[in-house]
Amino acid sequence: MLPILHLNGYKIANPTVLARIPRPELRALLEGYGHHVYEVEGDDPAAVHQQLAATLDQVVQEIDEIRQTARKPGGAARPRWPAIVLRTPKGWTGPKEVDGLPVEGTFRAHQVPLAEVRTNPAHLRQLDSWMRSYHPEELFDERGALVEELAALSPKSYRRMSANPHTNGGLLLRDLSLPDFRDYAVEVPKPGTTSSEATRVLGKFLRDIIGRNPETFRLFGPDETASNRLDAVFEATNRTFTGEILPTDDHLAADGRVMEVLSEHLCQGWLEGYLLTGRHGLFNCYEAFIHIVDSMFNQHAKWLKVTHGVPWRRPIASLNYLLSSHVWRQDNNGFSHQDPGFIDHVVNKKAEVIRVYLPPDANCLLSVADHCLRSRDYVNVIVAGKQLALNYLSVGEAIVHCTRGCGIWEWASDDQDKEPDVVMACCGDIPTLETLAAVDLIRQHLPDVTVRVINVVDLMRLQPSSEHPHGMSDSEFDALFTVSRPVVFAYHGYPALIHRLTYRRTNHANLHVRGYKEEGTTTTPFDMVMLNDLDRFHLVMDVIDRVPGLASGAGHVRQQMSDRRLLARAYTRATGEDDPEISGWTWPY
Amino acid sequence: MLPILHLNGYKIANPTVLARIPRPELRALLEGYGHHVYEVEGDDPAAVHQQLAATLDQVVQEIDEIRQTARKPGGAARPRWPAIVLRTPKGWTGPKEVDGLPVEGTFRAHQVPLAEVRTNPAHLRQLDSWMRSYHPEELFDERGALVEELAALSPKSYRRMSANPHTNGGLLLRDLSLPDFRDYAVEVPKPGTTSSEATRVLGKFLRDIIGRNPETFRLFGPDETASNRLDAVFEATNRTFTGEILPTDDHLAADGRVMEVLSEHLCQGWLEGYLLTGRHGLFNCYEAFIHIVDSMFNQHAKWLKVTHGVPWRRPIASLNYLLSSHVWRQDNNGFSHQDPGFIDHVVNKKAEVIRVYLPPDANCLLSVADHCLRSRDYVNVIVAGKQLALNYLSVGEAIVHCTRGCGIWEWASDDQDKEPDVVMACCGDIPTLETLAAVDLIRQHLPDVTVRVINVVDLMRLQPSSEHPHGMSDSEFDALFTVSRPVVFAYHGYPALIHRLTYRRTNHANLHVRGYKEEGTTTTPFDMVMLNDLDRFHLVMDVIDRVPGLASGAGHVRQQMSDRRLLARAYTRATGEDDPEISGWTWPY
Repeated sequence: MLPILHLNGYKIANPTVLARIPRPELRALLEGYGHHVYEVEGDDPAAVHQQLAATLDQVVQEIDEIRQTARKPGGAARPRWPAIVLRTPKGWTGPKEVDGLPVEGTFRAHQVPLAEVRTNPAHLRQLDSWMRSYHPEELFDERGALVEELAALSPKSYRRMSANPHTNGGLLLRDLSLPDFRDYAVEVPKPGTTSSEATRVLGKFLRDIIGRNPETFRLFGPDETASNRLDAVFEATNRTFTGEILPTDDHLAADGRVMEVLSEHLCQGWLEGYLLTGRHGLFNCYEAFIHIVDSMFNQHAKWLKVTHGVPWRRPIASLNYLLSSHVWRQDNNGFSHQDPGFIDHVVNKKAEVIRVYLPPDANCLLSVADHCLRSRDYVNVIVAGKQLALNYLSVGEAIVHCTRGCGIWEWASDDQDKEPDVVMACCGDIPTLETLAAVDLIRQHLPDVTVRVINVVDLMRLQPSSEHPHGMSDSEFDALFTVSRPVVFAYHGYPALIHRLTYRRTNHANLHVRGYKEEGTTTTPFDMVMLNDLDRFHLVMDVIDRVPGLASGAGHVRQQMSDRRLLARAYTRATGEDDPEISGWTWPY
Repeated sequence: MLPILHLNGYKIANPTVLARIPRPELRALLEGYGHHVYEVEGDDPAAVHQQLAATLDQVVQEIDEIRQTARKPGGAARPRWPAIVLRTPKGWTGPKEVDGLPVEGTFRAHQVPLAEVRTNPAHLRQLDSWMRSYHPEELFDERGALVEELAALSPKSYRRMSANPHTNGGLLLRDLSLPDFRDYAVEVPKPGTTSSEATRVLGKFLRDIIGRNPETFRLFGPDETASNRLDAVFEATNRTFTGEILPTDDHLAADGRVMEVLSEHLCQGWLEGYLLTGRHGLFNCYEAFIHIVDSMFNQHAKWLKVTHGVPWRRPIASLNYLLSSHVWRQDNNGFSHQDPGFIDHVVNKKAEVIRVYLPPDANCLLSVADHCLRSRDYVNVIVAGKQLALNYLSVGEAIVHCTRGCGIWEWASDDQDKEPDVVMACCGDIPTLETLAAVDLIRQHLPDVTVRVINVVDLMRLQPSSEHPHGMSDSEFDALFTVSRPVVFAYHGYPALIHRLTYRRTNHANLHVRGYKEEGTTTTPFDMVMLNDLDRFHLVMDVIDRVPGLASGAGHVRQQMSDRRLLARAYTRATGEDDPEISGWTWPY
């Protein structure tokens, strides 16, 4: 909370704008951000050090007073944090001149000032006198050890910067106190007949997690907590806000546990810092805009990978993303808000730190979220819709299904005693809906075709076990997806990812994937799936095109499916809405 | 250049911090950024409009004076641009209260204030009186047309905002005047024996492009123009800088054509604006950090895709990325600087707007750059190293090879009269080097094994022609990669991408890809390729493992290759450098 701007770059060649801002403007800028500004400046190192030390003493006292005030009831107002501006010449106390050219105070001090020490005796001599200018004889004894007086300045034990437990957050980490997620489950007496808003169901679970862990759990997100339908959390807490709070404000408080700001960068950075210092959190975001933090995610994933090889680093809580308001339901926002590619980005990172879940309904989302919040040292990506959507599994079934990660839905399949004619696989809530509606159409129009329905929650299950710890063995994959039957796979994101994960599988040549192919606009939900050929009618056409021997006999059905796409589109153009027969479909068996 | 902050959100529920900054602090903040601040505020619309109009007149005059001054010799100093702060209540002139709750001036004005107009007669009446409060009878005539007096206020012709040619930049676009890139080529008397820094060669071409197009071409980059070895451009121009310029500064000027700032976001935004208004540019960036603009790239690619369907939109210059300082040569920076995944991200967007090139040497980079700078309406990604690297092709050969995009290198192959035992494919400068060194080892140690070497410059050639306009037909692909021989493919980035692009090809089951598998650290170039099993010795082992019948007979050679990896690593640990026999390897035939 104590920024020190060290403007030692004020003469470098690169347009480092900050360092060139005239003094009054820089002061105005910092004061504009609410800082109390101290300036320290000079050419004489001893004088500057003394001035800086005195300023630091003053500033530490000021911070302490702010903290004391904040801890009093009603005292947590927005403080004017102190800021120190320290101006010194660039390359300060280094060589003033090398080979006749000025170095100190110029851009030449930005890299190695004496580059030819090994070959140029003049450079070597200059290095020698530069190093001697720091008086090593006063700093070290004859054996080269730091003199006792200086060594004693270093703080002891955990007050050493490197031993501060907050730099090894796993030391401070305590398990979350989690309520039983089954208590939040929706009743599912029969699959595919009742509806829930999955994230709203999750919101109640999160509310009680916040209530039970008031100091170790925070929810992060760019202004979308309510929009993503997690607003039950406001029954237990508020949005963090340290500015002036007005009577007309809605759930703002200095001690709020919801960190909401319309900057994905800030949300990600806050959450990383919170996790690295031993706490827990969840970042909820519109799916398309999580790409804003691609580069930050990269560095966190790289950090996790590297720390796995550092034995003294203790595991930290996983970085959990909840991506809602996803590609298929941007009815009002359109093409700019449609991008399911974060999953592809994540999958490039090391398998041991990456997990991706696409729960098909509310109870599955609960089960997945509970699992992710208990996990350590991963990046978990959960993609789940916020709109009313069918419930398929009771909570007991959801637990089994999510633990397995991928499995046959018996109740939707009719291949119990034999190999099916076609495997209908699905991953993601909307693809699951369209797949089941397609299965219904197949039962009606092509009753002789036997179908196996497979739902994938844990995307990494599709990979070979040699590539990812969650990967299925080939024999398990073959048993599920068969070795020779056509597989029509409806996937939430870009279809290529499914091929990338499965290209080594026996039956890959028969795998046909539908997903988002970058076609979108502001339109109805069903029109969106039609634009990308992911709709129930097209899936039936895909089955007809791929099940051997079906094509000619099913010509009438195929044409009917094609016509129903045209009628469905015409309906949207006439009414601005989807045909209720489509949007209101439920599983009829 | 005229920011108007319209603070109508000062009472919304979300922590919109800006709107709550106390007036003096906001003024200080804007003044800190060098603005001359005007404040306009009030509750009475007529008074505020009048005040705003007067302020705008004043401000436009001020801007005009700044411009006049800037056009005088030596006048282009950093100006104090005017900024207007306009404060009005949120939901201003809308309903003050709905259903007994305050709306105007509160967060309730953020969305639809009267949500039940269709069903609630009170809401409908309120909507009616709200709309009438704007006096439509004074604005429209009996037929509903705008009254003449108001219609006459609209500017004429291209001064209408929608008809301004800068909003349809293709109207203003002129071809670049490009020098003949062949004049910048390096001599290649024999493949793989001389070395160049590819981007340094390109820099001279860019220098002369800037010289010939002083008003329509800019180079953008985050502080890396010199680091990426494009510094020849500073013979023709400077870095843009409008602040105070000091005598010790290096190539800063207000009219410089190199836009350099350590913010990839700014570089991307500037370039997009420059292209959309009819100019040309190139963005050079460290490969790993281009992910910072993933989300901005998405929106530009979506824009291009959508505008292809808008007949009156004229084509604009392509958005060209030059990614240098790439994953394989981060000797000093290490793991944090290693990420070749931007290509994967780009490939998710619509095929018709996406092009990806990995020129293997300096002359190929020239040819590719020339092609990209002439293109329209694409996003071109070029990946090229900056370090000294072998030259393989004369400029004439490079033109043919890059135009073809993918082809057999006859001089490196020895399968002229028959199907080869193995295809060694490569894409990217470092993979090409390792592949050719592996071919040399095979010739020495396994002289009976015939090898076909294929180099890929245009990555999209690998896709089926149905998926990308550059895609090869299946018959062409089969002729190159065979239908049954093992293919060892050395690729610059994540191996999965090659599988994703080729999974439909006949010979895909025999395709074995090496690339970056997220293993890296601060180490020597050859150790980096060894960490990822992309090195020449491992490629030979891959050939031994995959060519039928070779395994047992080549056991000695395989062990030797494995030993040479160990020796190479030991050499780096002992000396901090690569064995010169490896780093100095050239093509010996």
